[in-house]
Amino acid sequence: MAPKNDLLLRAARGEKTERTPVWVMRQAGRILKEYRDVRSRLSGFIELVKTPERAAEVTLQPVDILGVDAAIIFSDILVIPEAMGLPYEMIESRGPVFPETISSEKDLEKLRIAEAESLGYVAEAIALTKKELNGRAPLIGFAGAPWTIFAYMTEGGGSKTFSKARRMLYNAPGFSNKLLQMITESTIAYLKSQIAAGADIVQVFDSWAGILPEAHYEAFSMPYIRQICDAIDEVPVIIFAKGAYNSRASIAKTSCSVMGLDWNMNILETRELSLGKTLQGNLDPATLYADFKEVERQTKKMLDQFGFEKHIANLGHGVYPDIDPEKVKCFIDVVKNYSEQKLSKGRDNTSL
Amino acid sequence: MAPKNDLLLRAARGEKTERTPVWVMRQAGRILKEYRDVRSRLSGFIELVKTPERAAEVTLQPVDILGVDAAIIFSDILVIPEAMGLPYEMIESRGPVFPETISSEKDLEKLRIAEAESLGYVAEAIALTKKELNGRAPLIGFAGAPWTIFAYMTEGGGSKTFSKARRMLYNAPGFSNKLLQMITESTIAYLKSQIAAGADIVQVFDSWAGILPEAHYEAFSMPYIRQICDAIDEVPVIIFAKGAYNSRASIAKTSCSVMGLDWNMNILETRELSLGKTLQGNLDPATLYADFKEVERQTKKMLDQFGFEKHIANLGHGVYPDIDPEKVKCFIDVVKNYSEQKLSKGRDNTSL
Repeated sequence: MAPKNDLLLRAARGEKTERTPVWVMRQAGRILKEYRDVRSRLSGFIELVKTPERAAEVTLQPVDILGVDAAIIFSDILVIPEAMGLPYEMIESRGPVFPETISSEKDLEKLRIAEAESLGYVAEAIALTKKELNGRAPLIGFAGAPWTIFAYMTEGGGSKTFSKARRMLYNAPGFSNKLLQMITESTIAYLKSQIAAGADIVQVFDSWAGILPEAHYEAFSMPYIRQICDAIDEVPVIIFAKGAYNSRASIAKTSCSVMGLDWNMNILETRELSLGKTLQGNLDPATLYADFKEVERQTKKMLDQFGFEKHIANLGHGVYPDIDPEKVKCFIDVVKNYSEQKLSKGRDNTSL
Repeated sequence: MAPKNDLLLRAARGEKTERTPVWVMRQAGRILKEYRDVRSRLSGFIELVKTPERAAEVTLQPVDILGVDAAIIFSDILVIPEAMGLPYEMIESRGPVFPETISSEKDLEKLRIAEAESLGYVAEAIALTKKELNGRAPLIGFAGAPWTIFAYMTEGGGSKTFSKARRMLYNAPGFSNKLLQMITESTIAYLKSQIAAGADIVQVFDSWAGILPEAHYEAFSMPYIRQICDAIDEVPVIIFAKGAYNSRASIAKTSCSVMGLDWNMNILETRELSLGKTLQGNLDPATLYADFKEVERQTKKMLDQFGFEKHIANLGHGVYPDIDPEKVKCFIDVVKNYSEQKLSKGRDNTSL
């Protein structure tokens, strides 16, 4: 069923909208008391990801509480390595940890291309969410970009330098490409299962894009992102590659519909590079520590820079967990009201 | 005494040299067995920093063992907060931790402008090193940029987001500027004491530049970097602001002599922005995981892109601790031989 609020989908396709659509990365999460309540009744993050009813419940919370124009399915990019045969643990205040990592051709034998069935809990959560959403907003599916997933599988967890993962690219490019290809095929099947279950649009997160030098990003990330974009033709694709300053032009050349900007990407410069694609972003997430007046001022400034078409408003990265939800709501309300006001003025002027 | 090998100083001043000078960030450190031997006889990193004889010893090691064209005094950027009244601990495999942090105007009362005397151990290490160097290479002094020091003092240690530090800039800009000014004055006095003790050139490390949005970098980092550049007129100043893509033009406009590039900064683009300044960098530190042939190939490619003047060769960030010193030596030797060969060919052609 097509959502009644389809602003985000229309903006993603480059169509004009009555106002700028808005959602927030990590909107379903620790900023909301309602999320923490659900979470506290479970054993941890991974159980929440794997319990469709609860995942659907927290996915819907920001639609009801914050008034965003899209839900994003509550899940984790690391379900892919797990479905490929490499499980992980989520350790409070430290992040994801892989007890085993992949470091050689031999290790690849332990892995399989993830089958959509093994990720059925995500499809189920999507189906439940769609039903509950009942057209109030579109639902975003997502996956990690192959390079970012590769980085976790070889490094074994988060890292300041990801030097183990980066060593592979220099030392074992053949092995690296094989693993990246396995991840890519797993990801395409996974995204297609999300779309089949009801996702209206999908986002690919390349969280560790910024750590690669340009030549490596072009060699070890872009070809796989391109494969994903080409394979997903059912719904629009958003590519969010944090820190990929030097590869924005390459991303613009893929068949994706939307390019996500982190808070350090210059808006006007990226608009020029974007080949007419819709842009998403990019308020500095730390702005929401400021007072309401400053949040309003900065949000308006950002909206003016993006202009009022081909833009999906968002933060330039996930919302920080200690942000006051009222500040997030302020951001969302300013986007809605200011863009509507600007666009209705534009229409009035045109009709003069 | 002016060093006999003054290639780096001449390149920093924009003069022609017979070959490209080269050194390596973190060259005095864990990659060298000889360093680990010295370190293992002491209680830890901070004791090494505070023991002038040992700091001088490890400062000299890379000159003797690796053949770099400059020594950089073995020290730590966090000696400044300590000298201001905020001590820290260095915890193995975690990094620096401040038991107390600064979070309000009231906390500023606990701090003082650091007096050069309280950092006498660094000046002493510099004097000892200069004597032992005996002109074989110039000696680089250094300090953290005020924003990076501020980030540690308010955050209390390393962080993926530095959200506590960034919150201050939005929430308490007046307080932030006061603390930044105190750090700046401390840093200027400290760098001057290093120069008085014998440093031939100084580098300012803005390690966390990349985390700030452009407007904040311009408001909360650049004014203080500018003050430092203007205050230090005795020797050339190198500014290395990791991730400051959007502020390269601003850095070029300061009175610094050299701009450092991280491994993600496009060389040709930065050269265009650099207003004729000497550039330093920027081989991807992970390149040194590759085999010797690839290290050679990538190093030559980098040298060709910088051209063979107004360039100080280096990595684009500190050398990773698990890199084989023979690979570092390979990088250094390729810089020396290839640039000498290229420049002597240039001279031969001119004389035809």
